[in-house]
Amino acid sequence: MKKLINNPNSVVSEMLEGMAIINPDVIYHKEYNVISRKSKKEKVGLVSGGGSGHEPAHGGYVGEGMLDAAVAGNVFASPSPEKIIKGIKEANTGKGILLIIKNYSGDIMNFEMAKEITEAEDDINIKSIIVKDDVAVPDSTYSTGRRGIAGTIFVHKIAGAKAEAGGTLEEVYSIAQKTVTNVRSMGMAMSSCILPAVGKPGFSLQENEVGIGIGIHGEPGIEKTNSKTAKETVAILCDKILHDMEYTNNEVSIIVNGMGATPAMELYIVAKEVDAYLKDRNIIPYKYFVGNFMTSLEMAGCSISLLKLDEELKTLLDAPCNTMGLKVGYK
Amino acid sequence: MKKLINNPNSVVSEMLEGMAIINPDVIYHKEYNVISRKSKKEKVGLVSGGGSGHEPAHGGYVGEGMLDAAVAGNVFASPSPEKIIKGIKEANTGKGILLIIKNYSGDIMNFEMAKEITEAEDDINIKSIIVKDDVAVPDSTYSTGRRGIAGTIFVHKIAGAKAEAGGTLEEVYSIAQKTVTNVRSMGMAMSSCILPAVGKPGFSLQENEVGIGIGIHGEPGIEKTNSKTAKETVAILCDKILHDMEYTNNEVSIIVNGMGATPAMELYIVAKEVDAYLKDRNIIPYKYFVGNFMTSLEMAGCSISLLKLDEELKTLLDAPCNTMGLKVGYK
Repeated sequence: MKKLINNPNSVVSEMLEGMAIINPDVIYHKEYNVISRKSKKEKVGLVSGGGSGHEPAHGGYVGEGMLDAAVAGNVFASPSPEKIIKGIKEANTGKGILLIIKNYSGDIMNFEMAKEITEAEDDINIKSIIVKDDVAVPDSTYSTGRRGIAGTIFVHKIAGAKAEAGGTLEEVYSIAQKTVTNVRSMGMAMSSCILPAVGKPGFSLQENEVGIGIGIHGEPGIEKTNSKTAKETVAILCDKILHDMEYTNNEVSIIVNGMGATPAMELYIVAKEVDAYLKDRNIIPYKYFVGNFMTSLEMAGCSISLLKLDEELKTLLDAPCNTMGLKVGYK
Repeated sequence: MKKLINNPNSVVSEMLEGMAIINPDVIYHKEYNVISRKSKKEKVGLVSGGGSGHEPAHGGYVGEGMLDAAVAGNVFASPSPEKIIKGIKEANTGKGILLIIKNYSGDIMNFEMAKEITEAEDDINIKSIIVKDDVAVPDSTYSTGRRGIAGTIFVHKIAGAKAEAGGTLEEVYSIAQKTVTNVRSMGMAMSSCILPAVGKPGFSLQENEVGIGIGIHGEPGIEKTNSKTAKETVAILCDKILHDMEYTNNEVSIIVNGMGATPAMELYIVAKEVDAYLKDRNIIPYKYFVGNFMTSLEMAGCSISLLKLDEELKTLLDAPCNTMGLKVGYK
């Protein structure tokens, strides 16, 4: 295992410390592995998080126009309720809290427990939303129902814009729900990743074999198959997404997400193929986000997320945000 | 070789096409593999480029506050003078042109030839600047003198800000020269990269071996050694940089650059170690840029660039820029 780390057992705290050094607009609460905004504004507070290894998710999305706090668990492991409670308290300015949770059993259990405890003890009004955008498999290793993957970034962005604009908790929840309803994703991997504390790959792929529909923790997907061209890969992923939701004649926003070790060159080629695929089917590409947004350590591969837009979603998508992981609407 | 591509022989044109789809503010000139800004403003034009495989460099840096045109050669191969001339013409608004060239023999030959031809035929006032920030080796496979690597991004950023602010060609050249004088870099690799058209790695590293001072085309560095911790790696790279230039009591800006396949988690840990290293030596970290800025296809590893700042450089570094590869100063 070759990794640029110091100690497999302290990667999470060390990388969060790094995040706060790189981005002076956030604070790192070391005891809790929580990243929160330095300057607070009276608004609905957005809290997300989950296992580490998906950087910049989620600490990299703390900032203007997106999250107020992110809670990091160990690599691929849910953070404890105690840590999530700290995230909620840091994000709370009295206007209510929205928890954005990817659909993994551990995350749901711990976030919901934190919600109940905080509601009871601190009288904070909290709603939660579950993201389950991955169409690959109906249930998975760590989830009942579909997994939450890169489509979560759209939920951070859009709910974040609504909260920044002064939306009520009910309004922020409602637009987050609409985003969840309108987004679908699917991914593939060309290589596995190695958990620092484990030291060997989580799964194996033969030379010239790829995993279709694989999860962001290396969970099995639909099949292992021989390597495909970018065009064929895009068709496989998008066919499955379009089979699940009707996008025809709609504008869509697209995330082409690198899994961590995918060269930018390849992501741009994938984006070109997505564009051709969508236009061929009378789907209108509105805005692309291409990069490493929801990674899986050093896995090579990509996921594609398609968000069906309406005017309200477009306005919120285009609203400025200024975080380490995503900057939009810079003028 | 597993790559998300269609055809090893068309990766450059396909990825540039993708770039222009992702970023509606640029135009892709297919016949020349040139990316240029869509909306032109009367100012000194900045042109850079070189071999492909370093994405987002350089097409990703075309836009407000950085470059006006970028010229892409084949993977790790210099673009022809004819293509560079097209880049110059696209960037020209009558205020003169600055060519920003990384120090590789092929690039220098072709950019200088393009400069001579354009000056003679079109009466365009052109200056060129050579970036040679890599302290690893005095000469290299493709260069006489030091190689140009990620420090080039600082030159794009700072000269770009000066040009955007209405600086004359002489002023833009002069600040670019100051940036080149003040920046030093060094890199390391944990794995090789595979040229699409070649299909096998350019060099090899044993399990548990890393290359120190390696170039962005896989050129040999100082030594192959056993894997190091992030802290040890930072010390090796920064010691060599500090041996070459005095930074004590100065503010510096830092690029922690991923080589293409390095997880964000590892880059954040490296940034944390750079911060500690600098502060220990009374060097004052001013601003960090951490991400994949000057890559080498799917190479794993990183480079560190340190730019010695003064008030003029700080102001230009902080000026807004809005490109695919770098966004700064968003408010």
